[in-house]
Amino acid sequence: MNAALELGGTKTVVAVGENNGDLLDEYRFPTTTPEETLGRVVEWISAKTSPEAIGIAAFGPVRIDTKATDWGTMLASPKPHWNGFSITAALLAAFPESNITLETDVNAACLAEARIGAAAGMENVAYITIGTGIGAGILCGGRLLHGALHPEFGHILVPRKMGDEFAGICPFHGDCLEGMASGSAIGRRWGKPAHELSSDHPAWEIEAWYLAHGIIGLLAISPPQRVVIGGGVSQVEGLHDKTEELVRVLAGGYFPAVNEAPYVVAPKLGQKAGIRGALMLTGL
Amino acid sequence: MNAALELGGTKTVVAVGENNGDLLDEYRFPTTTPEETLGRVVEWISAKTSPEAIGIAAFGPVRIDTKATDWGTMLASPKPHWNGFSITAALLAAFPESNITLETDVNAACLAEARIGAAAGMENVAYITIGTGIGAGILCGGRLLHGALHPEFGHILVPRKMGDEFAGICPFHGDCLEGMASGSAIGRRWGKPAHELSSDHPAWEIEAWYLAHGIIGLLAISPPQRVVIGGGVSQVEGLHDKTEELVRVLAGGYFPAVNEAPYVVAPKLGQKAGIRGALMLTGL
Repeated sequence: MNAALELGGTKTVVAVGENNGDLLDEYRFPTTTPEETLGRVVEWISAKTSPEAIGIAAFGPVRIDTKATDWGTMLASPKPHWNGFSITAALLAAFPESNITLETDVNAACLAEARIGAAAGMENVAYITIGTGIGAGILCGGRLLHGALHPEFGHILVPRKMGDEFAGICPFHGDCLEGMASGSAIGRRWGKPAHELSSDHPAWEIEAWYLAHGIIGLLAISPPQRVVIGGGVSQVEGLHDKTEELVRVLAGGYFPAVNEAPYVVAPKLGQKAGIRGALMLTGL
Repeated sequence: MNAALELGGTKTVVAVGENNGDLLDEYRFPTTTPEETLGRVVEWISAKTSPEAIGIAAFGPVRIDTKATDWGTMLASPKPHWNGFSITAALLAAFPESNITLETDVNAACLAEARIGAAAGMENVAYITIGTGIGAGILCGGRLLHGALHPEFGHILVPRKMGDEFAGICPFHGDCLEGMASGSAIGRRWGKPAHELSSDHPAWEIEAWYLAHGIIGLLAISPPQRVVIGGGVSQVEGLHDKTEELVRVLAGGYFPAVNEAPYVVAPKLGQKAGIRGALMLTGL
C-alpha cells in the first residue's frame, strides 16, 4: 500500500491507496505550522500502513529537482514558518524505507486528469488552475515538466487586448498572464470577486483573451493535445468554450492539436485531482 | 560504431562516430529528392559500417512521435517531393538491424550544445535558431521536449514593442515571434538583409525585444538554465548581450535562472551541432 500527501497553502490531504490513483482512505485538515502539519501526516499514515512509496503534491515554490542538495525544501514561501522547511526530510525521518516522490500540486493534478480525468489517456496535457494566482502543470511526452525551479506559467508575458488599459497586478511584471487574468486581477479590475460576475459580463471576453494567449505559448513550447482549466475562477459558465474558440482563431491553422474538439475543457476530478495525482506519483 | 544523419532543407550531412558525439568521418552534399538523398546516405554508411544505431536530425515538420503509425514521415513539407516521405522507413529498409532515433534538427543541436557546447553539463537548455524562420530545441530535465507534433517555438505570440507598427510577415499569425523577428521579417522591415545592418542599427533593439519575450515564455513553461541563440541572424555583434539584459529586466526578479550570467549565449559547435547531436541521439 502506498501513501500520498497533498500539501496546500490552506488545507492538507493525506491518503493511502494504489499507484493507479485509487484511494482507500483519506484525511483532510487545515495546514498549520510545518511541524504540526507533518506530525499529523506521519501519525495518520503510521496508523494505516508502513508505505512502500509516498507521493507528495506540494504548494510552492518548492525544490523538486532531485539532484539539488535542498530537494524537498520550501523556498521563499509567502506562508509563515514554511520557508526553508524540508517536507521530504520530515517524511524520510518517519519512513526511512519509503520511496518518496515530490511534485508541484499542479503537476500532480495534471497527471491525474491526464490518466483518469478530463484528458484520460493523453500524454501531452496542460492543466491550468486559476484562483488567486495562475499556475499550470504540464505533461509532455508522458512526463511532467520541470526545469530549473518549476514551471511558472502564470508569469508568461502575453499581448494586451486592444484597448485594455488595466495596468495588471503582478508585483513582478504588472501585466503578465497572472497580473491580468488571475482571480485577484479580476477582483481588482471590476471591484468585485469573479464569482459575482455573471457569465455574460465583459470580464469573460477579456479573461478568455489572456488565457488563449497563454495557451498559444504552451502550443509553441510543449504542445498539449488538450488543455484542462480548473480553479475557482474557471467555473463560470462558458469560459472553456470561449477560450477554446479564441485559441482556434489565434492558432491560425498552424497548430493541428487545437482542431480536435474539445480542446479546452473543465477538470473531471474536482477536489480529488491533487491527492489522486500524488498517489500516482508513487508509480512513476 | 554508430551512424548519424543530419537532413537539412538544402544540405545533408552523414557521419559515423560515437554516441558521445565524437565524429570519425563525415560527408556533406546538397539535399535533392528524397530517393536520391537517402540513396547517397545509405551507400556512404554501408561502405563504412553496419551501424548498431542511427541518429537522425531532420528538418520539419516531421512525425517524431514514435507511437504514431507514420513515425519518421515528412509532413506538409514546403520542399517538393518530401511530403509524405518516410526517412525512417528508407533507413530501416537498408539497415533492418539498426536502432533508429529521430529528432528535429533543432533538438539535436540543442542536445549537442547542452552536452559539449555552450551549455555543457546543463539539463535545462533552450537552443533558438534565427534564420529565414525561428525554431527552438528544448532540453528540459535532461530530456528533449516534443509534444503533439513538435515544438513550434517561432509561433509564440509576443507583446508588441511600444510604437512598433510593422505588421509582421507570418502567413498564419502576422506578428508572432517569427513574424516579427525572423531573418525574413528583418529583411522585409528594413528593406535589406540582416547581415547588411550594422551592429548599432535600431533593428537590433527591436530584435532583442521580441527574442527576450519569447525567452520569458520558455522561462514560464520549460525554464532553461541557459539559452543558446544561433543561426545566421544571431551573428551580429552584441545581440546576445542585448537580449540577456532585456530578459533580466523583463524577468523582474521572478526567474532565478536568469541571474546566472551568462544566460543568453552564442553556440560553440557552429556547423557541427546538428550532426554531433544526431550522433548523441544513438546513446539516448
